[in-house]
Amino acid sequence: MAELIRVSSQSRSTAVAGAIAGIMREQGYVEMQAIGASALNQAIKAVTIARGYLRDDGFDLMIVPEFTEVEIEGAERTAIRMAICKRAMAAGGAVAATVAC
Amino acid sequence: MAELIRVSSQSRSTAVAGAIAGIMREQGYVEMQAIGASALNQAIKAVTIARGYLRDDGFDLMIVPEFTEVEIEGAERTAIRMAICKRAMAAGGAVAATVAC
Repeated sequence: MAELIRVSSQSRSTAVAGAIAGIMREQGYVEMQAIGASALNQAIKAVTIARGYLRDDGFDLMIVPEFTEVEIEGAERTAIRMAICKRAMAAGGAVAATVAC
Repeated sequence: MAELIRVSSQSRSTAVAGAIAGIMREQGYVEMQAIGASALNQAIKAVTIARGYLRDDGFDLMIVPEFTEVEIEGAERTAIRMAICKRAMAAGGAVAATVAC
């Protein structure tokens, strides 16, 4: 079962970026979920920041988004669920390959 | 030079999704730029919708986000620039490989 990071409009993008980097180093895969534009903004900024944190680890990140329905206090909301995938970087920064994701 | 789709908060995500699908079919690569949470929300929803449009074409999409500074009416703004990358799908939907991106 993949770890799921729930990002809200109040989430600090640098804190979420640190969580993404940590889980990607250990497990190589993580999922994020955001409901609403402000939360999604924090989530995407966090992945962008985490790419920098992981540069020295020799891999990059890619996002695969999908819609998912979630129930919040009895109401159906459409969330964006994002799979965060690892892509190995070849020397010089050229793309080597993407780990299955 | 890659095509750049500038997404605003007023952009219709289905229209942007159609543009993404068309360019990806023809060129296999496109970039999107969004400034602000509402515009980014439309951009990410558009990629999510475009993934569905391209399913029958046998490939999926992944997003690689980065920050970029843009000048809007003389003011510096931080935009999110997103590279939209093609990943080939193997039979059964398993990931085959990612086209260099």
